[in-house]
Amino acid sequence: MENKFVSYKCQLRVRYADTDAMGIVYYSKYLEYFEVARTEFLRACGLPYAALEELGFFLPVMEASAKYFRGAKYDEMLTIEVQMPAEPSARLSIDYKVLNEIGEMLVEGKTTLAFVDRKTNKPTRPPIQYREALRRFTTTQNEQE
Amino acid sequence: MENKFVSYKCQLRVRYADTDAMGIVYYSKYLEYFEVARTEFLRACGLPYAALEELGFFLPVMEASAKYFRGAKYDEMLTIEVQMPAEPSARLSIDYKVLNEIGEMLVEGKTTLAFVDRKTNKPTRPPIQYREALRRFTTTQNEQE
Amino acid sequence: MENKFVSYKCQLRVRYADTDAMGIVYYSKYLEYFEVARTEFLRACGLPYAALEELGFFLPVMEASAKYFRGAKYDEMLTIEVQMPAEPSARLSIDYKVLNEIGEMLVEGKTTLAFVDRKTNKPTRPPIQYREALRRFTTTQNEQE
Amino acid sequence: MENKFVSYKCQLRVRYADTDAMGIVYYSKYLEYFEVARTEFLRACGLPYAALEELGFFLPVMEASAKYFRGAKYDEMLTIEVQMPAEPSARLSIDYKVLNEIGEMLVEGKTTLAFVDRKTNKPTRPPIQYREALRRFTTTQNEQE
Repeated sequence: MENKFVSYKCQLRVRYADTDAMGIVYYSKYLEYFEVARTEFLRACGLPYAALEELGFFLPVMEASAKYFRGAKYDEMLTIEVQMPAEPSARLSIDYKVLNEIGEMLVEGKTTLAFVDRKTNKPTRPPIQYREALRRFTTTQNEQE
Repeated sequence: MENKFVSYKCQLRVRYADTDAMGIVYYSKYLEYFEVARTEFLRACGLPYAALEELGFFLPVMEASAKYFRGAKYDEMLTIEVQMPAEPSARLSIDYKVLNEIGEMLVEGKTTLAFVDRKTNKPTRPPIQYREALRRFTTTQNEQE
Repeated sequence: MENKFVSYKCQLRVRYADTDAMGIVYYSKYLEYFEVARTEFLRACGLPYAALEELGFFLPVMEASAKYFRGAKYDEMLTIEVQMPAEPSARLSIDYKVLNEIGEMLVEGKTTLAFVDRKTNKPTRPPIQYREALRRFTTTQNEQE
Repeated sequence: MENKFVSYKCQLRVRYADTDAMGIVYYSKYLEYFEVARTEFLRACGLPYAALEELGFFLPVMEASAKYFRGAKYDEMLTIEVQMPAEPSARLSIDYKVLNEIGEMLVEGKTTLAFVDRKTNKPTRPPIQYREALRRFTTTQNEQE
């Protein structure tokens, strides 16, 4: 039986530049972390975002949201869990969880991205390469389980 | 009859640093713009955020979300409309609309902030100064209408 | 007698996002402030940077430096003084001084920008519009003195 | 014979958020990259910056400069070479070189940091732990050569 979701984890370290005068990571920074996580996820699928741009696509964000439970501190190593539907659709809905080193949930988030044609600047269907990459990644994940 | 909402407008100009390789403002930047707008709103109420910090409060963001309709470009002068309930409550729910120079809606957003005691780092009731400031601002708005 | 330098002042307010866990503005942010100041300076000359891009030019930064004397705090209104040679040359050397509300020097800086042709991506001579704009601005400044 | 300099290399990947409308990394971002590099360098010495803060020190930047030769693009993996005098002094002078994947020099930079006492907010001598960490790191480097 197939997975209904594909998931991926990556890590990143909080930079001093990311913190604010409250001593914790500034709230907009997590959207940047989400971007890092989905970029690494696409790379892990064998389809780096830079390749998508070369194929003639942009992936602008349509919606983004975040719930903040605890603040991340300078130099903490964060784990970002990414999850998305295994079945490709016109829009990319991605869920994120940001955890600290002892597994506490810091932030939960969601972004919705659309495939846009770089020439026409209009929404478009995802390229076949994306569908195939997602299928390959799903298969690999299933085999590992 | 009283207003159920208080509202405020401010303007800011897109910096080169705010743009990304798509040629438009990077999606997390709008959360920074929201912060500028609510800061100016609090100042207009006669209660600058810095004063709230001096009174012993932090106002961390609990939730944030944004919907992106159009990208803002470098050097555009944006208008940010802020709206919040006239009746103060334990949490501050603020709605934002970001418009360009010809009145097109670029981004809609929402943030929820909590009053936190700087010493205990725990959620707390809003200070009386905040309630009074909000009341004063509402009265002024009503008189102007 | 002509001015050897043209100068300009603008103001900006420190955002929460600009601060770091030391409670002051993060050191790289001043380079962003410098950009705001030179953008407003070019606009005051009647030649907004966006217009320069439309004329087919980029103005990438070749060198940048800053000396930090005091940290700016959240919500402070900063004054940025910009100064550049009145005589246009292939490169734009601009000096900056960042002052707080009581006139204390916080940061001194310098940037050198080059005119680059957007098509060839090569360094090029400044456009005639730039020379004229600078001359107009210088004349206006002299008349005001 | 002792090394006169200690050096260190680390890598980081350009985020979409780091780019601007010119399609390359925004010029102030390199100062953030420098911070990442010196942070990792201090960690490699066995003295993470966070530990220095816990020991009662801040390390604010006194001076920073950068020369820009080529722009880094989205998703490029950059190498940052850090070099500093092996002999500790009151101020930390660090040189940086940012290289792309094919070894081209993109940016050269320099920062000067001061040890500041967190309580008095005054410049102070570097802690003994820092001197020892630097000595250990130098010895290890010599043995490896």
